[in-house]
Amino acid sequence: MCDEIIEQKIDITTSVMNKNDLFAAENRGFLKGKGIYTLNLISSPGAGKTTVLESMAHYFGSRMAVIEGDIQTRRDAERIEKAGCQAWQIETGGACHLDAHAVKHAMDQMELDSDILELLAIENVGNLICPSGYDLGENLRIGLLSVPEGDDKILKYPSLFSTINVLVINKMDLLPHLDFDVDRAIEECRSLNPDVLVFTVSAKTGEGMEEFCDFVESNYS
Amino acid sequence: MCDEIIEQKIDITTSVMNKNDLFAAENRGFLKGKGIYTLNLISSPGAGKTTVLESMAHYFGSRMAVIEGDIQTRRDAERIEKAGCQAWQIETGGACHLDAHAVKHAMDQMELDSDILELLAIENVGNLICPSGYDLGENLRIGLLSVPEGDDKILKYPSLFSTINVLVINKMDLLPHLDFDVDRAIEECRSLNPDVLVFTVSAKTGEGMEEFCDFVESNYS
Repeated sequence: MCDEIIEQKIDITTSVMNKNDLFAAENRGFLKGKGIYTLNLISSPGAGKTTVLESMAHYFGSRMAVIEGDIQTRRDAERIEKAGCQAWQIETGGACHLDAHAVKHAMDQMELDSDILELLAIENVGNLICPSGYDLGENLRIGLLSVPEGDDKILKYPSLFSTINVLVINKMDLLPHLDFDVDRAIEECRSLNPDVLVFTVSAKTGEGMEEFCDFVESNYS
Repeated sequence: MCDEIIEQKIDITTSVMNKNDLFAAENRGFLKGKGIYTLNLISSPGAGKTTVLESMAHYFGSRMAVIEGDIQTRRDAERIEKAGCQAWQIETGGACHLDAHAVKHAMDQMELDSDILELLAIENVGNLICPSGYDLGENLRIGLLSVPEGDDKILKYPSLFSTINVLVINKMDLLPHLDFDVDRAIEECRSLNPDVLVFTVSAKTGEGMEEFCDFVESNYS
């Protein structure tokens, strides 16, 4: 790409990111004020974010609310509502990630005043790259990697895996059918991010999900 | 996102896209001049683009060259070279898609003068969103969707699936272990894109790959 375009891109990116950081700080303060702990879930399309959240809905019930980010369709919000949680769908209409202003706008329209509510989970747009640059005001950033994607993905997408607090390896039920080296994936993630916590789960079968939910709850209770 | 930021984004995007279209036109002319037919493969991370290309390498041998796009690592180019084809790795260093100028720059450094060479396959960065807006100068745009990603992905990522010439559904060997409705995926793709051609394959087992390679070859021979 020619220098001129690169320069323009850097200027505009810096400006957008600074504004995002201000909205993220406001979100973090607002959520702290309400006593709500917040997660930002990031993964490829189809790694199982919504299935993980459905499983979490069975554990947390109405103590959890969910913001769903998708380019298009209300499908994921409908799944979460069926699982028993309040859900708000953001359709980005083309944007490849959520930003803090979109999350603020969603929160303005949700019912966040309940005394029971203690957890807000934000499911980002399915994308291993662009969401990693946008703080949404979350307390915990969670990266999901699913077994069928392959154990080589961590070092190929370092902008995400170097900035997460927790790595969740999902679809462990498919391990017998695939060549995926769990130890390699964890080792490569720790090479980028020594303090990352790791959970191995199958949201479909429920394997490992109670331990993961216990961990989430222990962060704020 | 506030109006001011949206306006800035539109201006800069238009400018970048116009420049990209010029480079893409130049690439298309250059490749036509050399008698090389070109594919642009786009999918999520881990949908199997590189495994499809390894399988194609066994069919086309030195008649095919490959450009690999990744944020980081030379892993994919090394796999293609082992499979017997010339490969050039573009490490985008953070950019979430390839653009036509990066492809032009790669081609300038590759050996494209061979009389045997007839096919150039470009593996885009693993991302279902951002690459779809960038013409690279290809003749055929191919979208890969893998069975573990789920049959609901087409309508969630319409910017890609409405602009592809060919849909390849990969990892068909995992169909017995997953709830994936092939007919639903094809029907939803045709609702966006009535003329799309569809192939169902398993690049890992080889199922359907000869038919797909025959099809690619028939486009230019």
